[in-house]
Amino acid sequence: MNGLPFQDEYLEARADCWGCGRNNPEGLYIKSYWEGEEAVAHYQPLPHQIGHKGVMNGGVIATLIDCHSIGLAIAHAHREAGRAIGTSPLITYVTGSLQVDYLKPTPVKGEPVELRARIKSVDGRKSLVTCSLFAGGVETARGEVLGVQVEELPMPA
Amino acid sequence: MNGLPFQDEYLEARADCWGCGRNNPEGLYIKSYWEGEEAVAHYQPLPHQIGHKGVMNGGVIATLIDCHSIGLAIAHAHREAGRAIGTSPLITYVTGSLQVDYLKPTPVKGEPVELRARIKSVDGRKSLVTCSLFAGGVETARGEVLGVQVEELPMPA
Repeated sequence: MNGLPFQDEYLEARADCWGCGRNNPEGLYIKSYWEGEEAVAHYQPLPHQIGHKGVMNGGVIATLIDCHSIGLAIAHAHREAGRAIGTSPLITYVTGSLQVDYLKPTPVKGEPVELRARIKSVDGRKSLVTCSLFAGGVETARGEVLGVQVEELPMPA
Repeated sequence: MNGLPFQDEYLEARADCWGCGRNNPEGLYIKSYWEGEEAVAHYQPLPHQIGHKGVMNGGVIATLIDCHSIGLAIAHAHREAGRAIGTSPLITYVTGSLQVDYLKPTPVKGEPVELRARIKSVDGRKSLVTCSLFAGGVETARGEVLGVQVEELPMPA
């Protein structure tokens, strides 16, 4: 891991997300870094982020996989464009779809979980990202996120 | 909607979930009710539960869809068994997989979103549930959750 996490370089318009935005007052503050062709993040689950006692909540896992994967889509698009993340104009992605397989219970303990994501394919504005979550070196969840590049962040009608 | 929400009848072992457990100190407290063959829930998004300004966070949406759908799987299994939810021995489900399509931005405003889920199929211990999320009557996300019935709640190895 090297450099700033992707999310610390996002433009302000992208910095409010509950999962990964540095400006969210009550967020998870997911931080993703390049490691070769992969994006890696570590996250310490909080005691209340459970599904049942001792086991990490599936919705929080989905959130980590979503934000980390979209972070990679954004970082990859900037890398391909030869630009640093956070330079104008905005290059960003929204989540088109999210799929998560819960392979094993993920323990909530005193050590962080690890996320590892890689680009599976890019087709125009669509980037498909695969992401696995590991606890103590064991893969406990595996996801796929379709990120869609947008010119500006979409607002409700 | 009638009677108690499913989650208020869960046995104590099932009442800790961040998404829907009545005993979680910092949870979302999703409450699901029968309405004919559907399960219905309403949830007021909080100001910090955003992806970007004004738009609901995708991970929170995934959490709502997950917990509401598993709630329906649990309620349906009890109905089929002719038992009230929360009677012993435990009948419960865990999430095997979760899939969400984000159709439109979901506004975070002063009115709650609505979740509507129904059983798509039951195959032995596996229940497939479809769930849509509506904001102002407009469907903004659609999910599918595979619930797996377990004898007791699985713990990490």
